[in-house]
Amino acid sequence: MNDAVLALQERFGDRLAVGAAIREQHGRGESYHPGMPPDAVLFAETTGDVAEAVGKCHEHGLPVIAFGAGTSLEGNVSAVHGGLCIDLTRMNRILRISAEDLDCTVQAGVTRVQLNRELRHTGLFFPLDPGADATIGGMAATRASGTNAVRYGTMKDAVLGLTVVMADGSVIHTGGRARKSSAGYDLTRLFVGSEGTLGIMTEAVLRLHGVPDSIVAAACSFPDLESAVRSVVAVIQSAIPVARVELMDEAQMRAVNEFSRTGYPVADTLLFEFHGSPVAAADDMRRVAEIVAGFGGGGFRTASTQEERSTLWKARHDAFYATTALRPGARGWSTDVCVPIANLAACIEGARVALSATAVPATIVGHVGDGNFHVIFAVDPGNARELAEIADVNARLIDLAHSLDGTCTGEHGVGTGKRGYMDREHGEAVRVMRMIKHALDPTSILNPGKVLPDG
Amino acid sequence: MNDAVLALQERFGDRLAVGAAIREQHGRGESYHPGMPPDAVLFAETTGDVAEAVGKCHEHGLPVIAFGAGTSLEGNVSAVHGGLCIDLTRMNRILRISAEDLDCTVQAGVTRVQLNRELRHTGLFFPLDPGADATIGGMAATRASGTNAVRYGTMKDAVLGLTVVMADGSVIHTGGRARKSSAGYDLTRLFVGSEGTLGIMTEAVLRLHGVPDSIVAAACSFPDLESAVRSVVAVIQSAIPVARVELMDEAQMRAVNEFSRTGYPVADTLLFEFHGSPVAAADDMRRVAEIVAGFGGGGFRTASTQEERSTLWKARHDAFYATTALRPGARGWSTDVCVPIANLAACIEGARVALSATAVPATIVGHVGDGNFHVIFAVDPGNARELAEIADVNARLIDLAHSLDGTCTGEHGVGTGKRGYMDREHGEAVRVMRMIKHALDPTSILNPGKVLPDG
Repeated sequence: MNDAVLALQERFGDRLAVGAAIREQHGRGESYHPGMPPDAVLFAETTGDVAEAVGKCHEHGLPVIAFGAGTSLEGNVSAVHGGLCIDLTRMNRILRISAEDLDCTVQAGVTRVQLNRELRHTGLFFPLDPGADATIGGMAATRASGTNAVRYGTMKDAVLGLTVVMADGSVIHTGGRARKSSAGYDLTRLFVGSEGTLGIMTEAVLRLHGVPDSIVAAACSFPDLESAVRSVVAVIQSAIPVARVELMDEAQMRAVNEFSRTGYPVADTLLFEFHGSPVAAADDMRRVAEIVAGFGGGGFRTASTQEERSTLWKARHDAFYATTALRPGARGWSTDVCVPIANLAACIEGARVALSATAVPATIVGHVGDGNFHVIFAVDPGNARELAEIADVNARLIDLAHSLDGTCTGEHGVGTGKRGYMDREHGEAVRVMRMIKHALDPTSILNPGKVLPDG
Repeated sequence: MNDAVLALQERFGDRLAVGAAIREQHGRGESYHPGMPPDAVLFAETTGDVAEAVGKCHEHGLPVIAFGAGTSLEGNVSAVHGGLCIDLTRMNRILRISAEDLDCTVQAGVTRVQLNRELRHTGLFFPLDPGADATIGGMAATRASGTNAVRYGTMKDAVLGLTVVMADGSVIHTGGRARKSSAGYDLTRLFVGSEGTLGIMTEAVLRLHGVPDSIVAAACSFPDLESAVRSVVAVIQSAIPVARVELMDEAQMRAVNEFSRTGYPVADTLLFEFHGSPVAAADDMRRVAEIVAGFGGGGFRTASTQEERSTLWKARHDAFYATTALRPGARGWSTDVCVPIANLAACIEGARVALSATAVPATIVGHVGDGNFHVIFAVDPGNARELAEIADVNARLIDLAHSLDGTCTGEHGVGTGKRGYMDREHGEAVRVMRMIKHALDPTSILNPGKVLPDG
């Protein structure tokens, strides 16, 4: 054990774990990426713990990686240069809920499901749902979003302020509770999406929303993927305020039925949800039903009860696990591109063409109202040839997204998996990102080897 | 003339102006703050012009200040250390409109009115309206918003990407056209609100919105300010998606009637606007009418025709000029605080108390749906005692906003006017802002003396 770990152990006692199993578990997310265990894992309980630990790592030049629910998908938490993993899941207190201001303050280790459970009796909810029951800190770090983003935005919109431990162990507060401000640089949104490379977020002020009076969901099957996608584009262009519009292709529906023991029609499918007053939600749904019918969408099935809706959305949220389960021992590889909505049909068509080059089981699923979709592969993580094949399909899909004015990641983040695409996507702006990284973390101890390409 | 200006003149010929009148005009916004003229004014026509000019200023250590419509309110453009003013108003081309993607790319000198005129036949509009016909570059620089922000957000939400000239004259592109992205640091939102101190924005990708099928406006008078504010809080907490909710106090209504020759009731007044399908907009309005009636709001008058609405909103947008016109020779001093909505009544009540300490004519007006309001004073800019008196009222109001979890500026920016409040508002985070400023502009040529306090 190196000096830094010994110093941390002396300070934190058995809250600092160095056992192999705990380190292994903290060296990876849920994806195929090879895990790299940290040297030690600290179970932090306060911002002060994090500040003190980061301060010690700063003294010793030891890398520090923040860790939440471990559900990331691009190798975002693997300890590629070793170091200290700070597990924030014990920082799971909801510190304040202001129902009248529609906001709250939570510690970074609170999960989205926990938060919504706590909000149940307030008439409010936290809309973002990236499928997995991620922590708020993890979601902020990757600028996560999910099915509701088409209506409620992403973590950049949900986070109003942050408590952040900087590379030297100092603590700052960014943003605030006012709904808007022009008072200086937007540090909040600089930290959101920075994946723990500029600072470690320990608390967040979050924007909440009133539970709509009426929530209606609907599912609709299509003769082919293109018709489904084209009807989404028409819905978005019509400016109907849908709360959710999700695509699951035929293969995904088959996987979901198998995994969740549901009996949904096996066809390219759109799931919709409408939020508003009873009058507005019904009106929105009626207009969408008209549009999808024009594209051959059939069997517009509504789910009005909480239970029907829960089943429907559980099926959607299980998509990643359902695809992974298609193949025993497989791990999921979920690519994540996002393009302007008018280019979505071309991008998904291109994805299908690219998919035809591999026999690896794959599904298409996405937050298509934002132009964002995933191809999920069930890969054999021990098969190097297969991994190379999927890496190639992935690269082709990202090239396509870039050529269609899109981005290489809509919501999963860069981690180690997408670093190689940053120069192509941002050009000279990568240099400016590097200047900021160097200014805020001059010795590069914060989650090194992530987000920015070497250079 | 110094060497830098001579070099610029050699390169740009008569597009570089050094006459006193032009320099005076480019040394100030619309507020009471004393103007400071730059050494020269360049009328830039391309991003290349800006890059070349900034490059030369970088070589010579000459300050550079970007200038748009000149409508800023906190001394944001005054050349406090001299230098080159780059006037961007000739860069007023709309480069692309993608109706199907609800976005466009514009040069920084395009104004919001010009953009909406151009969009008239597309079914789309750009919702942000900070009263003045500001340029998109200026609005992005100050993170502006206005009456529609309660529904459509601020410039941080409207700007999807930017072209920015950095302090060394290099050019970068930030963000992009995808509706969301997790690909690296959010440089777009770092530049939005940075008031030209981190780079000069020359182009912007903007999010547009579909013109709603139905737009209905309404005005409502109240027996007192508190009833008006309390009904706004109730409307926001009910999550009715109002598109606008604006407060004008009795004094403001009197000033507006005089200035715009209108005959609105002289009373504390709320203006509302509802956007949506005809069914949804009517339903929203009905629910709001019910709520305001519960707070004694009387005479809920609707304006459905384009002409009635234009008259109503013109009155609102003239508020600043109407107040200034109350006193011949006066200039406007508009403070700008924003607090969580539940604290709005206390903050506005405190503002009234603070106002009672001065005889200077003043009105209260605001984007109350966001918790944001202004007190506009008609000050005699030559009367030092009076300016000191208003500075004191302003300081008390900002202290109050801070004590109510608010911000010292909701939408006008920091400029020179609010620098002194940054430490109180942000604490240690100011140090981090300074680290970023130093990394991106090490010789401090970009709009020096603004945003960050000395230190």
